[in-house]
Amino acid sequence: MTTNPKTIAKIIANINPVESAWREEAEKRTSELVMPPRALGRLHEFSEKICAIQKSLQPDLTQKAVLIMAGDHGIMEEGYSPFPQEVTPEMIKTFLREGAGINALASHVGAEVRVVDLGIIPDLDPGELDGGQCFRVCKTGRGTANFSRGPAMTRQEAEQSILTGFQEATLLINQGTTLLGTGDMGIGNTSPSAAIGAVLTRTSIKGLVGRGTGVDDPGLRQKMEAIERGLTINRPDAGDGLDVLAKVGGFEIGGIAGCLLAGAYHGVPVVLDGFISTAGGLIAHSLCPQALEYWFAGHCSAEQGHGFMLEFLGLNPILDFGMRLGEGTGAVLAMSCIEAGVKMFKQVQTFAEAGVSGAVS
Amino acid sequence: MTTNPKTIAKIIANINPVESAWREEAEKRTSELVMPPRALGRLHEFSEKICAIQKSLQPDLTQKAVLIMAGDHGIMEEGYSPFPQEVTPEMIKTFLREGAGINALASHVGAEVRVVDLGIIPDLDPGELDGGQCFRVCKTGRGTANFSRGPAMTRQEAEQSILTGFQEATLLINQGTTLLGTGDMGIGNTSPSAAIGAVLTRTSIKGLVGRGTGVDDPGLRQKMEAIERGLTINRPDAGDGLDVLAKVGGFEIGGIAGCLLAGAYHGVPVVLDGFISTAGGLIAHSLCPQALEYWFAGHCSAEQGHGFMLEFLGLNPILDFGMRLGEGTGAVLAMSCIEAGVKMFKQVQTFAEAGVSGAVS
Repeated sequence: MTTNPKTIAKIIANINPVESAWREEAEKRTSELVMPPRALGRLHEFSEKICAIQKSLQPDLTQKAVLIMAGDHGIMEEGYSPFPQEVTPEMIKTFLREGAGINALASHVGAEVRVVDLGIIPDLDPGELDGGQCFRVCKTGRGTANFSRGPAMTRQEAEQSILTGFQEATLLINQGTTLLGTGDMGIGNTSPSAAIGAVLTRTSIKGLVGRGTGVDDPGLRQKMEAIERGLTINRPDAGDGLDVLAKVGGFEIGGIAGCLLAGAYHGVPVVLDGFISTAGGLIAHSLCPQALEYWFAGHCSAEQGHGFMLEFLGLNPILDFGMRLGEGTGAVLAMSCIEAGVKMFKQVQTFAEAGVSGAVS
Repeated sequence: MTTNPKTIAKIIANINPVESAWREEAEKRTSELVMPPRALGRLHEFSEKICAIQKSLQPDLTQKAVLIMAGDHGIMEEGYSPFPQEVTPEMIKTFLREGAGINALASHVGAEVRVVDLGIIPDLDPGELDGGQCFRVCKTGRGTANFSRGPAMTRQEAEQSILTGFQEATLLINQGTTLLGTGDMGIGNTSPSAAIGAVLTRTSIKGLVGRGTGVDDPGLRQKMEAIERGLTINRPDAGDGLDVLAKVGGFEIGGIAGCLLAGAYHGVPVVLDGFISTAGGLIAHSLCPQALEYWFAGHCSAEQGHGFMLEFLGLNPILDFGMRLGEGTGAVLAMSCIEAGVKMFKQVQTFAEAGVSGAVS
């Protein structure tokens, strides 16, 4: 059981680079497997990265979990989202009743689903909800402020949302989770994610604003203008991830950043979901670049700009199914591929064990 | 229990197009699921295609199997392959001992592995082998002839290899298999596959000959020349898949074609593996174009030319991991994604069931 560091600085000070010696050991075993050299392509990349992170040639991904961070967004006032804000708590209830996309996919790959209220507007009482044992309330606030009119939250709130995400991920890790996925729920959250993406990749907002849950053309223009205004008014500091999160972010995005830092801190691999999760990844990366050695990009979302954000981070997505749901759906699907790589690494015999003739040299 | 048709013509006469009415019913349910429209991208494509093939809105993929078709190749005489021909039976023994790549991945996704000797050179006795109950000997011949010097096999042998593949797949289907994968084992078999690809896509051999298990530059030139010579000498008829299989094919490639026709005949979806499986797909498609409505492309292989062959067939690969092992590895990994789509389709609640507000229109 690890005690939780009390500040982000203390977390970052204890994040170490992944040890290349373990990767080299793993590569050596890969080269002996009864197949042409690296014939299973990216499956070898997955297994070797896990070996390096877990410091083991017998890595284990048995206990998987996805953390869905939930929050509400003041920018919903601008009125361009096709879905009303009540959908945030309604979907949380659906997750807990196991009726949503993430539930079907998480159960398919054997991952636990846990939902954390980082800052939704209403109060949901876990004790009164079906499935409430999978729900934790750790509000940083009741929805962010409208960042197109001023800062989304204070710097203290930004830090608190990250520390909460870190603590919730640590709790799962202390309970034995060996592979974590990030997920999100928050109507309106493609807007702060696009804003974060634009600032931290130092790009114009144009390439990063997409249709989210499905805004129409006038809605897309409104969305673009609102985000642009938010960036002009708030002037987030591209060199300071915490400032960016505070000015134009979201509580659940801070939670995701904290979860990603927790993986790196504890040496547990984390699979990023899509657009919102990757915005969290950009914040965490801005605070601690080497943390990303512990991350996998689960998929490339259909949301415009996601591929660009992943490229900026140097993460090569595992799946490309044109998904754009969030919830952690892309993260859990990819978990199954990573686990396939690890099982292959552990179970396949070497040429010597199998008594199979090698290549003629 | 289905009786086996005795000729390819009788098989083809009983392959019907997939019914679009079932796809439309499935699309209707997809549109009601508690998520933005088609937010899970290709997972919807997978589930709807399975619904249409199985004629059900409660499709079932519980019983999965991969058929590894094995054969040897006379073109090995040309001497450019880095692996010796003995590797074919050695790998079959490794499959039966569950020590190969396919075993780890098939067990990960819950698929049975069955190996069929369509025409390897040596005799392997299932009764004397560990795991022999998963091995069936149905030789069409003892290795093909060297197609760079003359036809690989007779037209009768080509037909027999397809019928054998059909029968073996039918056996699995009669035993309850609801999702089939194709696999291959045969040292040297990228050469006939490239030849088939060039003829049936009406392309020059250049874009279709790759390094297989890993030939070096001089080997690659030799391989290219041998295949080119084989096409010049044999003049396979691009309008007649059976002629192409006989002149420049392989027994296991005929077996794969038969397996693919069996899926279409019995209304059971089949997942194609990589380069060799897709050569089998080109043969089956040449005999019966509409059979491909029952197929999925599991992945895009690293072997040069595979992507082009898939494009020719109009099949969009599910995974792209740079794999090039064969054995059915790409097919079984993709099975898990298709099954994820089906579980999602069946388990996710509708907006009405979940009591979640829809989009404002």
